[in-house]
Amino acid sequence: MKILVINSQLEKKHIELIKTTAEKLDAEVHFYKAESEIPQSDFDTDIIYGFAPSIVKTSKTLKWLCVPWAGVDSIMKPGYFANEDCLLTNAAGAYGVSIAEHMIAVSLVMMRRLDEFLSETREGKWLAPRAQKSLKDCRITVLGTGDIGTSFAKRVRAFEPASITGVCRSGKSRETVYDKVLAVSALDTILPETDLLAMSLPATPETCGILSRARISLLPQGAYIVNVGRGSAIDEDALADSLESGHLAGAALDVFQTEPLPQESRLWKTKNLLITPHVAGNLTLPHTKDKNVAMFLEDLHNFVACKPLHYLVDKKLGY
Amino acid sequence: MKILVINSQLEKKHIELIKTTAEKLDAEVHFYKAESEIPQSDFDTDIIYGFAPSIVKTSKTLKWLCVPWAGVDSIMKPGYFANEDCLLTNAAGAYGVSIAEHMIAVSLVMMRRLDEFLSETREGKWLAPRAQKSLKDCRITVLGTGDIGTSFAKRVRAFEPASITGVCRSGKSRETVYDKVLAVSALDTILPETDLLAMSLPATPETCGILSRARISLLPQGAYIVNVGRGSAIDEDALADSLESGHLAGAALDVFQTEPLPQESRLWKTKNLLITPHVAGNLTLPHTKDKNVAMFLEDLHNFVACKPLHYLVDKKLGY
Repeated sequence: MKILVINSQLEKKHIELIKTTAEKLDAEVHFYKAESEIPQSDFDTDIIYGFAPSIVKTSKTLKWLCVPWAGVDSIMKPGYFANEDCLLTNAAGAYGVSIAEHMIAVSLVMMRRLDEFLSETREGKWLAPRAQKSLKDCRITVLGTGDIGTSFAKRVRAFEPASITGVCRSGKSRETVYDKVLAVSALDTILPETDLLAMSLPATPETCGILSRARISLLPQGAYIVNVGRGSAIDEDALADSLESGHLAGAALDVFQTEPLPQESRLWKTKNLLITPHVAGNLTLPHTKDKNVAMFLEDLHNFVACKPLHYLVDKKLGY
Repeated sequence: MKILVINSQLEKKHIELIKTTAEKLDAEVHFYKAESEIPQSDFDTDIIYGFAPSIVKTSKTLKWLCVPWAGVDSIMKPGYFANEDCLLTNAAGAYGVSIAEHMIAVSLVMMRRLDEFLSETREGKWLAPRAQKSLKDCRITVLGTGDIGTSFAKRVRAFEPASITGVCRSGKSRETVYDKVLAVSALDTILPETDLLAMSLPATPETCGILSRARISLLPQGAYIVNVGRGSAIDEDALADSLESGHLAGAALDVFQTEPLPQESRLWKTKNLLITPHVAGNLTLPHTKDKNVAMFLEDLHNFVACKPLHYLVDKKLGY
């Protein structure tokens, strides 16, 4: 059995851990920092941990692709895998901490107007205090109650919000951090009572355009939006209009319909919009790396034992 | 009995509440947005809720000054009060939420490098991800375990830090959010094990220069500092040197030895330093206003009943 690991972020301890585990399981493992480094002789691999489209698209013998990130929409297209039976796992669950920290950070940057203050002091200006808002007593709606949304909810709970409402496909969650959990079909009922809408949805046919122009207008005057899931979830033009008109007080986007955000996009110049270049889920955080590797190794044991893989992507649901 | 309220931030509901309470207590109350508006005829007041140095410095009949903020170092100087027996209360306890939110925000902005990303995207640049740090598994030391430090500790706990150590004068705290609480005399033992030093100290002779050049050098390479207490606590020149040399990874200051920060200060241009213009404790937050007014009214009842005031400043300790 041959494993290729393609990841420039792994530390020595991760490489050692993978090597030791592979040895125990009688597997051969090769490490590369980038796909371009892989020699032709290694294309006949059984397992890929990382990403190597050229192999995935051509190898009829690849049995398992484990991608080290959560969103798999770009590789879920029909015909992407040369071997249609190739298993696909992802790292949904490894990024909750990283992305939740980002969500709290940008929420506070907007509400406490830190972007203004820091821009001003960077230019040597000490200007007067002005009205700020607070997470305390804020009505929060978390759209997408997976690992990311729930990690955010657990952190934001400590800020004493008025309420945290989860919204997900099923309308059910085992997590007790939510005051209530609604099905997506009830989204329109909660939007008018939402001061901060935190979006952490995968890209699926159901989530595409879910935050439409009509739904943005259901949010109350002065609401904030944070999106860390996929850019396809929001009507970007309607969002920009709402920010420009002053209906929304602010938005923070880490993901966009097209990435990198095209130079001609109006979002670059939209008022009260914070843009980050898809960095919320950062594989450089020690915790994220550790968990990512642990998840792969857990399923490597499963794979060798012919057991079902734990982090298998549901190809029907798309996540 | 006459009360002057001087505060431009109060809302109608606060004014009504103060009026109703004063009426019940048979007191006369006058509202002003600024000291300059107070007519000579109102200088003979018994109580001031707000700040009016010209009256405090001249009236021998002023019985109680209630300032709507926490730090009273600037008015604790000998001879400041014309009536030396005038009682002084502050609003320590009203700003914990506001300042703790600021502390979390600037900590994350530094660790997650949001200031870089937001500066770049503001200029239309979509640059590559880079190494970030996390509050998770971070060793946090809170220097000053009053309302502000403890409100911060309660929030940052949700981010799963490795440890939260409180440091205060007595070395004791009733708050269970700290893993341990040390006396200031043990500060040097914890600094080498501190990844994030959060400072929320009042200005007193004991805290002046407490974070000296020697103590800054005790912090490990890559540590972060947040200061929201008083600028006098830090050797600003030593801090700038440590940031410039790359020993400290970042610092966020909301308070300075001189405010506004003088144009000639080297801090304006110091690498990896976030400057905010003393805005962490912002009286515009609804919660802060409500609590501020409630604290004054609680002590107004005490004052009229000749009971000890709850929020009395200890003139010996200076806070």
